[in-house]
Amino acid sequence: MTELLPDEPLHRLRERRSAKWQRYGPDVLPLTIAEMDFALADVVKDTLADAVERSDTGYVMPGVLDEAVAGFAERRWGWRLDPTAVTMTLDVNAGVVELLRLVAKPGDRVVVNTPVYPPFFDWLREAGTVLHEVPLQDGRLDRPAMERAFASRPAAFLLCNPQNPVGRVHTPDELRFVVDLATRHGVPVISDEIHGPLVLPGATFTPLLSLPGAAEIGVTVMSASKAFNLAALKCAMIVTGSPRMRDLVAALPPDTAWRAGHFGALATAAAYAHGDEWLDRLLLTLDDRRSRLAKLIRDRLPSIGWRPPEATYLAWLDCRSLGSGDEPRDLFFDAGVALEPGTRFGEDSGYLRLNFGTSVEVLELAVDRMARAL
Amino acid sequence: MTELLPDEPLHRLRERRSAKWQRYGPDVLPLTIAEMDFALADVVKDTLADAVERSDTGYVMPGVLDEAVAGFAERRWGWRLDPTAVTMTLDVNAGVVELLRLVAKPGDRVVVNTPVYPPFFDWLREAGTVLHEVPLQDGRLDRPAMERAFASRPAAFLLCNPQNPVGRVHTPDELRFVVDLATRHGVPVISDEIHGPLVLPGATFTPLLSLPGAAEIGVTVMSASKAFNLAALKCAMIVTGSPRMRDLVAALPPDTAWRAGHFGALATAAAYAHGDEWLDRLLLTLDDRRSRLAKLIRDRLPSIGWRPPEATYLAWLDCRSLGSGDEPRDLFFDAGVALEPGTRFGEDSGYLRLNFGTSVEVLELAVDRMARAL
Repeated sequence: MTELLPDEPLHRLRERRSAKWQRYGPDVLPLTIAEMDFALADVVKDTLADAVERSDTGYVMPGVLDEAVAGFAERRWGWRLDPTAVTMTLDVNAGVVELLRLVAKPGDRVVVNTPVYPPFFDWLREAGTVLHEVPLQDGRLDRPAMERAFASRPAAFLLCNPQNPVGRVHTPDELRFVVDLATRHGVPVISDEIHGPLVLPGATFTPLLSLPGAAEIGVTVMSASKAFNLAALKCAMIVTGSPRMRDLVAALPPDTAWRAGHFGALATAAAYAHGDEWLDRLLLTLDDRRSRLAKLIRDRLPSIGWRPPEATYLAWLDCRSLGSGDEPRDLFFDAGVALEPGTRFGEDSGYLRLNFGTSVEVLELAVDRMARAL
Repeated sequence: MTELLPDEPLHRLRERRSAKWQRYGPDVLPLTIAEMDFALADVVKDTLADAVERSDTGYVMPGVLDEAVAGFAERRWGWRLDPTAVTMTLDVNAGVVELLRLVAKPGDRVVVNTPVYPPFFDWLREAGTVLHEVPLQDGRLDRPAMERAFASRPAAFLLCNPQNPVGRVHTPDELRFVVDLATRHGVPVISDEIHGPLVLPGATFTPLLSLPGAAEIGVTVMSASKAFNLAALKCAMIVTGSPRMRDLVAALPPDTAWRAGHFGALATAAAYAHGDEWLDRLLLTLDDRRSRLAKLIRDRLPSIGWRPPEATYLAWLDCRSLGSGDEPRDLFFDAGVALEPGTRFGEDSGYLRLNFGTSVEVLELAVDRMARAL
């Protein structure tokens, strides 16, 4: 019987100096930024402690990850990727921006499904491109709208799979639809799969490039940073599966790989090679938090609507009954709970994103404060 | 009496997994990539070990460095910078590219003094700009050539101070000349001062922005990564000193600060706030290595010309008597010593860059191998 991960006590979490725990004062419970509150996997902790001990703080060695990435993808998802087609970069955000620069000219349109992780909007602007928004329908791809969007020949489709913030996992059938559309219209697909390892019990993750034909039009950006909580360390991977896309990626700036963090690469290699057992415990722990949150919302916050996510540790809460715009966010913040306002994700009004990658203590305390605020 | 830093034994260095120590096999002594072989400062090591222990691996908290940067600059160089004018970024290379994008349009020319750190050429291309080369004369700025270059209205001047690879520190008089030229012609100056803390006994570092008028036309990119050997962790700072340049930097992509590494920020803050004593010992240690190298070259490699650097742990060796192009590099590599070929730095022929930020053991062994090769 696999055990859940142990919870960190709140006073220990408050000692963390990361953005999640430092942004607000001690009166606020931060359920905002997508960091998790569990202790690191032992294999990651030991790897980092050893690197510190031997003062191993120089530049990253390109290629150090490739075999570990391929092993992880095959064991977890049955995706056999070519380890020589892995390019390291510092994070998914920089990877996506650089890929957009390669496939789009300034002023070109890029298709994005909304609501979506707020930096997507920044990345498009940073690459000089323009948002072509195709809203999700009930959390799913709107196929007729996608047909119309692709027929208009955008420069690219930036896919978020699993989709942050709604936590939906795109099905093989949906992804085959995307591959077919992209192939027919010659539209490159950049697939942000950072939450791929965080698909929870009950759902199954399909890497885009594992589907027939996808490698000809798709490139994937992935990272261990969400699943193993390594955002501090700066490491992500760009993966291709065809000569055509490999040639595209070969045109990335020569410093792309050097921008990755050596500690990030060491931790990622360790996590991918030896982190399966910890990751399985994490998924059960997040499943437990998801169930607890469902019960807490039902019992204490019945005016909030939600659909439990299939992936991620993020809950997308429909708080439109509590006010419009950022009013729900402000209401709960005044009660001592920080949540991400849905307006940042491209929703007009009344939604909130809640990070449940935390302890039972913090989750219960937060919902208690939220319930008292109503 | 300040003691030198202790040397790490070679077998310990070979356990490092960074690029410097992994790129070549165990038969090669790597004196290439600009990492140092000393143990980390205790204050840095403890900071990192504590962060690992508390699983503090989330996102960087913007602003965490600002006071430490200002304190360090004032104590070390008498430069009083405004801590609110510090913007974090992941490394000097990304910082320079983003600044070039702000001051130059694609196709614009950027003045660079050569020989110079090879990625300068990549950064210009990445920002879509074109090299306007003004070679150093005997390691110093060529003032008439600089006059002509600025009169042609380039989009920017990318200064390297201290200059890598020649190790020269630009004097206040030279920098005043640059400020005057830049002001007269309206040319922004981006000053890469990553080696500023590594000015060795006998020379004095002048931060560009500490000079009258410089803040109106200059912006500085700096990092603790060279002086405290933190390249693994991804953290650098962009600093301005005038409303005009602050407005420029405000236009950086919104994700600029998030791309910095949290571990890098923690280590940098600790190093800047509490690392002076270790840094002083490092400078004496590098001074010692510089003297040893001078004697070793005089005694064992008399056909190699060089001028001991005023800053950095890099020696620029004139090996033209040993061959042209990369022949000297290949000669020594075959003898088991890896050095950076000067051709990468924009020199035509016959130069090598040697990294002496290492132990006496490695330095003596390397020179012995080089001498036997001749």
